Amino acid sequence: MNDLNDKFANLGAENAPGQEVRQGADDLKSLMRGDVLPGTPVDFSHGDVDAFAPTPGAREAWEDGFGRGGSQAYTEYRGDAAIRDALAHRLAAFTGAPVDPVDELIITPGTQGALFLALGAVVDQGTKVAIMEPDYFANRKLVRFFGGEIMPVTLSYQDTSDETGPDMAELEAAFRDGAKVLVFSTPNNPTGVVFSKETITRIAALAAEHGATVIVDQLYSRLLYDGEPYTHLRACGTRPDNLITIMGPSKTESLSGFRLGVAFGAAHLIERMEKLQAIVSLRAAGYSQAALTTWFAEPDGWLADRIAQHQAIRDDLLAIFRQAGLPTATPQAGSYLFPQLPELVVAPETFVRLLRIQSGVTVTPGSEFAPHTASSVRLNFSQDRTAAVAAAHRIVEMVERYRA
Amino acid sequence: MNDLNDKFANLGAENAPGQEVRQGADDLKSLMRGDVLPGTPVDFSHGDVDAFAPTPGAREAWEDGFGRGGSQAYTEYRGDAAIRDALAHRLAAFTGAPVDPVDELIITPGTQGALFLALGAVVDQGTKVAIMEPDYFANRKLVRFFGGEIMPVTLSYQDTSDETGPDMAELEAAFRDGAKVLVFSTPNNPTGVVFSKETITRIAALAAEHGATVIVDQLYSRLLYDGEPYTHLRACGTRPDNLITIMGPSKTESLSGFRLGVAFGAAHLIERMEKLQAIVSLRAAGYSQAALTTWFAEPDGWLADRIAQHQAIRDDLLAIFRQAGLPTATPQAGSYLFPQLPELVVAPETFVRLLRIQSGVTVTPGSEFAPHTASSVRLNFSQDRTAAVAAAHRIVEMVERYRA
Repeated sequence: MNDLNDKFANLGAENAPGQEVRQGADDLKSLMRGDVLPGTPVDFSHGDVDAFAPTPGAREAWEDGFGRGGSQAYTEYRGDAAIRDALAHRLAAFTGAPVDPVDELIITPGTQGALFLALGAVVDQGTKVAIMEPDYFANRKLVRFFGGEIMPVTLSYQDTSDETGPDMAELEAAFRDGAKVLVFSTPNNPTGVVFSKETITRIAALAAEHGATVIVDQLYSRLLYDGEPYTHLRACGTRPDNLITIMGPSKTESLSGFRLGVAFGAAHLIERMEKLQAIVSLRAAGYSQAALTTWFAEPDGWLADRIAQHQAIRDDLLAIFRQAGLPTATPQAGSYLFPQLPELVVAPETFVRLLRIQSGVTVTPGSEFAPHTASSVRLNFSQDRTAAVAAAHRIVEMVERYRA
Repeated sequence: MNDLNDKFANLGAENAPGQEVRQGADDLKSLMRGDVLPGTPVDFSHGDVDAFAPTPGAREAWEDGFGRGGSQAYTEYRGDAAIRDALAHRLAAFTGAPVDPVDELIITPGTQGALFLALGAVVDQGTKVAIMEPDYFANRKLVRFFGGEIMPVTLSYQDTSDETGPDMAELEAAFRDGAKVLVFSTPNNPTGVVFSKETITRIAALAAEHGATVIVDQLYSRLLYDGEPYTHLRACGTRPDNLITIMGPSKTESLSGFRLGVAFGAAHLIERMEKLQAIVSLRAAGYSQAALTTWFAEPDGWLADRIAQHQAIRDDLLAIFRQAGLPTATPQAGSYLFPQLPELVVAPETFVRLLRIQSGVTVTPGSEFAPHTASSVRLNFSQDRTAAVAAAHRIVEMVERYRA
C-alpha cells in the first residue's frame, strides 16, 4: 500500500476548487489580524452559474432528452449518435477543420473527463509529457497518476514579458529529450494567455516532426476579448497525426451542472478513450447529453453579450489589483485573473484560507498551477459584477493586513 | 506505445452492452441460415427504461436541482452535502450498519464510476485481486487496467449445483497466496445468485483475518424475489477494516440516464476515491445528483410492484428456455438471466451477432463474464413483458437453426 499512499498523496485535492468546505479553521486563530470583513461571499474558485445563467434552452433540452427515454438514457459510450453528428459539423466550422462524427468525436463527463481519458489513452509508466507551467492543475496530477514523467516548459504571461507564451526553446528541448506527449490549454488557465498563430503553428510543426501526441485544451476558446485572434492547432497545415482537441460547455455557457465535455481528433485515440470510458463511468449522463443540442446554437447576440459582460468585470478587477500594486496579466480570453501577491507574513496557502474565513472570498492558490507561481492566486471572475468588485477590494485590504 | 496497445486491447469494448451498434455485418452473410425473424426488437444488453420508467418524482427532483442553480451545479467532489446526509441515513437503515455522511460516503457517476474509483484506490502494479468467475465484466478489465493480477475464484450458479456461491476453498487459497483485494457482486451479475448468510459471514471473517480490502457491489440488492433473505457484509460482526459497499439507482429504479451511484465504507478509502474523482470527472453531474432525493424514498408499494412485475417476466423466460433444453439458473434477485446454449455451428460471439441481425435480439456474450462461460448469453429482462417473451422464442428458434 506504500506506493498507493504516495500516489494518492500526489493527488492532494485539499486546495482544489470547490473543496475548501472540507478545511477547518482552528489552527488559524493565532495568526489572524483584524476582524471579519463584511460583504457578500464570493467564490472565485469557479464561475457563478447564478450570475451567468446556463444557455437559454438547456433545461428544456434536458427535459426533451428525459422524454425520449431509453434511447437517450443508453447512448453509445462515446455519446448519442445524432447529437455527435450535429456537434461534429459545428465543431468543424468553429475550428476550421473537418470532424468525422462517427469516429473522431467523443462526448465525456465534463472537460475534466475528456482530459482524463485523453491522457489515459497515451500516458503509461515512464511516458515523458511536456507540460506548460503554469497551466491547469489537473494536467500535472493526471500525468503523475498514469505514471508519466513531467517535462516542464515555462510559460511567460506577465504583461511585462517581451512576449507571452511558452518558451519554445524549452519545448523543442523537451521533444528532443523524448517527450512523447504535450498537453496544454489555450487560452491558458490560469493566466488567460492566448497562444499566437506563430506559436501554435510552430508547436504543430515540432510535434509532427517528433511524432508526439498533442492534447490541446480549448475550453475557453469562445470567450475572446477585443476580437482577439485565435488559432486552432488542428487546422494548421503541418500538424501531428496524434492530435486531440478538448472543449466543453461548462464555462462560457455555464452548463457545468450537466457535466459535459467533448474530445475530437485522431480516430484511434478516440477509440481508446471510449474503451477507457467504458470502465470509468460508461458515458456522460444520457439526459445531460441532450443539452449539447443548444451548444454553438445559442440565440443571436448571446455570445457577444456574454463576452462584453465578462470583459467589463475583467477590467474592473484589473484596475483594482493594479491600483494596489499587484502585478496582474491582462487575460486575452477566458474568465481567469492571476494576480501576484507581495511578500506576506504568512504562507500563500495560509493567506488563501484566511481570505476565505475573514473576508468570505474564495480563490485558488497559485501553487496548484506551477511550483514557481505560489505567490499568485487564481480568480474565476465569471461572477456577479458588484459582488466581485467588492470582493476584490477585500482581497486588497487583506493583502495590506498581512503584507510582510 | 506497445504497452499501451496491449493495455487497450485488453479493454476491448466491442461486445460490451450498448456498443453493438458499432459492429458491421458484412462478414456474416456467408454464415447466415434462414431469413430474418420478424418481431419487436429487444435489447437485452440493458434494462428498458421505457418499459420500466424512472422512479416517480425523479424528473421533478432534477428540475428542482437545476432551479437551485450554483449550489447544485458545484457540489463537493464527493457530492452534495445535504443529499449525502439524507442518503447516509437511508443506506444505514437498509444495510444495518451506520454510515457517516461526512466521511464515509461518495456520490459517483454511476456504479461503474464507483467501481472504477474503488479499484483505483486499492489496486496498483502487481496487486493480487480475487475475482469471482463469472462476475460483472468490468471487474476483470479494471484490475488489468490498474496493473493488478487476477486470482480467479469459481462461482457455482446452476440450479444443478449442490450449493450455489463461490468456492470458499479457492477464495481462502487466494487470500493465503497474497490476494490483497476481493471484488464481487451479490446478487451476482450475470447469474442472479445471492450469496448466503453463511458465505457472506465467512468472506467477511476471511478478509478480516488476511487484512484484505473487500469491494462488494450490491447494485441489485433491492430487487429480491420471493422474499429472498439478503446479508449485508458491512453488517457482519467480524468484517474487514477496508470495506467499500457499492450501490446505485440505475437498475431497479431505472435512473440510468442520470448516471448516479454511491460508494460507502472506510473513510480513508472514500477519501482516496474522492481524490481520484477530482481528476477523473470532478463529480457526478450536479443537477443529476438531485434525483437521489427520490432514492429509498419511493411511494408505498412501488418497490413491491416493481419486483412482482420483474418476477413475472423472469418466470416466463425461464419456462421458455428450459422448455427448449437450455440450462438456466433461477435468479434469486436482479434482472439477469444467463442461459447456456448448446454446441453451435458458429462461435458463440458470432451467434450473438447473428441473433441481433437476424432476429432483432441483443444479448451480451458469456465470454465477457468469465473465460469458461463463453457458451452462455446474458439477458437483462427488465423489458416490456410481451416483447421479451416473443424475443425469447426467437432466441430459441435461432439456437435450433445454428445447433451443431
